[in-house]
Amino acid sequence: MNSIQTIVFIGAGNVATHLTEAFRNTGRKIIQIYSRSEVTAHALSERSGIPHTSDLNLISQDADLYIISVADSALPQIDLSLRIGDKLAVHTSGFHPMEAIKNISNNIGVFYPLQTFSKDHPVVYNNIPLCIEANNNDNLALLEDLALSFTADVRQVDSLQRKKIHLAAVFACNFTNHLYGIAEEILRTCDVPFDIMKPLIKQTAQKIIAMDPNEAQTGPARRNDHLVIEQHLQMFDDAEMKAIYKMLSEMIIKKYQLK
Amino acid sequence: MNSIQTIVFIGAGNVATHLTEAFRNTGRKIIQIYSRSEVTAHALSERSGIPHTSDLNLISQDADLYIISVADSALPQIDLSLRIGDKLAVHTSGFHPMEAIKNISNNIGVFYPLQTFSKDHPVVYNNIPLCIEANNNDNLALLEDLALSFTADVRQVDSLQRKKIHLAAVFACNFTNHLYGIAEEILRTCDVPFDIMKPLIKQTAQKIIAMDPNEAQTGPARRNDHLVIEQHLQMFDDAEMKAIYKMLSEMIIKKYQLK
Repeated sequence: MNSIQTIVFIGAGNVATHLTEAFRNTGRKIIQIYSRSEVTAHALSERSGIPHTSDLNLISQDADLYIISVADSALPQIDLSLRIGDKLAVHTSGFHPMEAIKNISNNIGVFYPLQTFSKDHPVVYNNIPLCIEANNNDNLALLEDLALSFTADVRQVDSLQRKKIHLAAVFACNFTNHLYGIAEEILRTCDVPFDIMKPLIKQTAQKIIAMDPNEAQTGPARRNDHLVIEQHLQMFDDAEMKAIYKMLSEMIIKKYQLK
Repeated sequence: MNSIQTIVFIGAGNVATHLTEAFRNTGRKIIQIYSRSEVTAHALSERSGIPHTSDLNLISQDADLYIISVADSALPQIDLSLRIGDKLAVHTSGFHPMEAIKNISNNIGVFYPLQTFSKDHPVVYNNIPLCIEANNNDNLALLEDLALSFTADVRQVDSLQRKKIHLAAVFACNFTNHLYGIAEEILRTCDVPFDIMKPLIKQTAQKIIAMDPNEAQTGPARRNDHLVIEQHLQMFDDAEMKAIYKMLSEMIIKKYQLK
């Protein structure tokens, strides 16, 4: 079995930015970066020193692996346009099935790092779950070898499982971060700096490393404390925040009363 | 100014359990624990070796400080029943104003640790924000001295600010933990262990230590990716989860489009 040494990146967003760095740290060579946007391609190219193009027809045909890391909404267009013969192509989407890139090559797979990437925030890779899938065992072995070069947590998951993992991650990460933002907005109304929340946020995350979320649940709704909940509901100026508070509290009350 | 050396705890729940340990580590003496429930009082007493009672009339009159750490719904009843002359009494509630214990003594205050406490999960105190308030400067100085003995982060906040901090904490902690629970439920439907979410949850919390939540926001709603959102909405069997997904996504779309 050959291993993957040279890579072309299709896409220059948050995930691509972080993965190019991670791969280079393992000694692999990124030979080209493509972005639909000349500006974005150029920016990542400047930052990384890797040649770039914004023309799919100019994609190098010489890489061992093509990593397609574009917005979920942009992937279908790539599938219609990119052709790389029999070279191995993977996408990094949690959402799309492997077959979403079936027109690009006969050798396809998925390489989905379960993590939140912001361009300017560092990511430590050695424990990131890396979900892989491939159209045959040889390709799966190639992807496993690649994944193991920067994380110890490599998992073979099928497209349906990955789609559910992605949905779960929207709750555990994206929506969670939005709740942090709501907390910040509430504090702004009484001139308390958001940093007061940080030890609590850290501990809330830390607790579920060791405990089941059901055991870790605390708060007024967990205690079914109507006095507090009713008064909290009266504190909102913002109708949406109030509606979210109400809905989440009712879900928690129902969940723990049934037990 | 005298400092506080002896303490009576009114309440034996999660907060009281953790605070008794924290105070003993600073060399102070907990001389008695009260709980309405004989079973709970006995349990904490067994664990800590501190004398207990379940009769408010048998509360010792000899302590420097009375810490009332009961459920928010139980505090009004304590205010009606407990009398300790002019001794200093504080409650630990984020929700109630200081005046909620005004009948107990002429010397009152609040000692609110902003943290989530589960009985069997350890808490590291040295950076927990401790929100204090008192009816005069002498009492405030006593509480500040006490608070500084186990955390570097002591803040004077008034009752209205504290109530908003508490509301913000419901979002940043209680509701966040509930979202972790929803993620767990989704993963259970496809036989993926919840531990796959842990590095992501940790990183999501870690990111906002350094970044504003608005900068840290990622995900389909942040990108206003209707394709993904619509398909996610079709994946739910549970009507409540679906409603929460919809409401949070719409809030995020609206929040970032306005900018």
